[in-house]
Amino acid sequence: MRNLKITLAYDGTDFHGWQVQPGLATVQGLLSSAIVRVTGEQVLPQGSGRTDAGVHAYEQVATCAIVSPIPEANLVIALNDVLPAAIRVSAAEEVPPDFCARASAKAKTYTYRIYRGDVCSPFLARYAYHYPYPLDEAAMKNAAEVVAGTHDFTSFAASDPEQGALPVSKVRTVFSSKWERRDEEFIYTVRGSGFLHHMVRNLVGTYLLVGKGTLSASDLQAILKGRDRSLAGPTSPPQGLYLVNVEY
Amino acid sequence: MRNLKITLAYDGTDFHGWQVQPGLATVQGLLSSAIVRVTGEQVLPQGSGRTDAGVHAYEQVATCAIVSPIPEANLVIALNDVLPAAIRVSAAEEVPPDFCARASAKAKTYTYRIYRGDVCSPFLARYAYHYPYPLDEAAMKNAAEVVAGTHDFTSFAASDPEQGALPVSKVRTVFSSKWERRDEEFIYTVRGSGFLHHMVRNLVGTYLLVGKGTLSASDLQAILKGRDRSLAGPTSPPQGLYLVNVEY
Repeated sequence: MRNLKITLAYDGTDFHGWQVQPGLATVQGLLSSAIVRVTGEQVLPQGSGRTDAGVHAYEQVATCAIVSPIPEANLVIALNDVLPAAIRVSAAEEVPPDFCARASAKAKTYTYRIYRGDVCSPFLARYAYHYPYPLDEAAMKNAAEVVAGTHDFTSFAASDPEQGALPVSKVRTVFSSKWERRDEEFIYTVRGSGFLHHMVRNLVGTYLLVGKGTLSASDLQAILKGRDRSLAGPTSPPQGLYLVNVEY
Repeated sequence: MRNLKITLAYDGTDFHGWQVQPGLATVQGLLSSAIVRVTGEQVLPQGSGRTDAGVHAYEQVATCAIVSPIPEANLVIALNDVLPAAIRVSAAEEVPPDFCARASAKAKTYTYRIYRGDVCSPFLARYAYHYPYPLDEAAMKNAAEVVAGTHDFTSFAASDPEQGALPVSKVRTVFSSKWERRDEEFIYTVRGSGFLHHMVRNLVGTYLLVGKGTLSASDLQAILKGRDRSLAGPTSPPQGLYLVNVEY
């Protein structure tokens, strides 16, 4: 049995997210089908984490165990031959048996793009959130700094009904958290030990309330301490979000 | 009656081309519906020319006559509010009554993007033709120069069955025609007095035969002189093609 680490990029617009769902086009489902077609082996690759519908990835990582002796370089070419053009495998490599895309991850980086110009190009509409209205970008920069460090991020986690009865730690460490201007875009980049479901989009939705003046940067402290999803802002739209990479 | 010149960009991937068709999403049809919603007036804007399904535009131009006194700047905002994000109006201006997007055009520029790298990013797949195989790019550059000037382009025109019995001139003037490398892309740009249906994609399909060594650059002369569609190469895929602008 070979344990394979597969690195892939995708334009998430036309998929129902990462996770396999019966009858729906998902990245995990399409990757699984591609592996079956190439190797004849029915496996479900495990991602470093799920991405939601409309969310993109530059370097998502998935692991799966296969028997086929197909060389790594050939596997990349063969998978790309059968995958839709909106999903591209950039690398496949054999890794030790105990390597797991999810459990072995040491850090992940996400970026969120907001287009600030008046008219958003049709070639950017799928790839950024268009927000042309006034924002106090300096206040949003300050707010982003507040979340750096180790915190209980309950206030920014989706309140998933299916998460089960057992309490799961919502403590995560954010190594860096910053907004920056690049021409007409205002871009948030966050690197952390791990992220809860909807966490980046809920952070961005909350920064937007700071930008609009509904909250102040210092309110972020109280929201974090409150450990209550209802204190934070709404979930920002998916098309601005990218999983940039996963570090091991 | 006000004669309006509307400039618009679109990502053509998800539309059935420019021209209105019953029951299908087309750029002309959606623009017409948007004008109805904004002004209450049922008009069919006339484009500078049709673009096929999957073909993009940076600055397509259309004209239509409306009665509504809505200011030009407000019309831009109102149309973009009701159009899908894949179509954006960049300008609307009142022009003299004899101005016609199609008949008044003095020159048009198209560009065709070929991605030459091994793996095409999912974020580029809709916006360029991926051709990673060997090509003699120098020969293609030479071939492109051959079509500059005034020629009968019958060999590069779609043999449309619906074009009618009356002979229509296939003579056009190409002001400039050139390929250039930009990093991993090989890009064709052509500016001319006007273009026949499929002409740019048929030229690119023929240059690709030159790049593969099936034809030589000097064969282009004979193909032009032959005035026979079957002499030229196949129609290249639509996603690489952009209407860049229209000059008046």
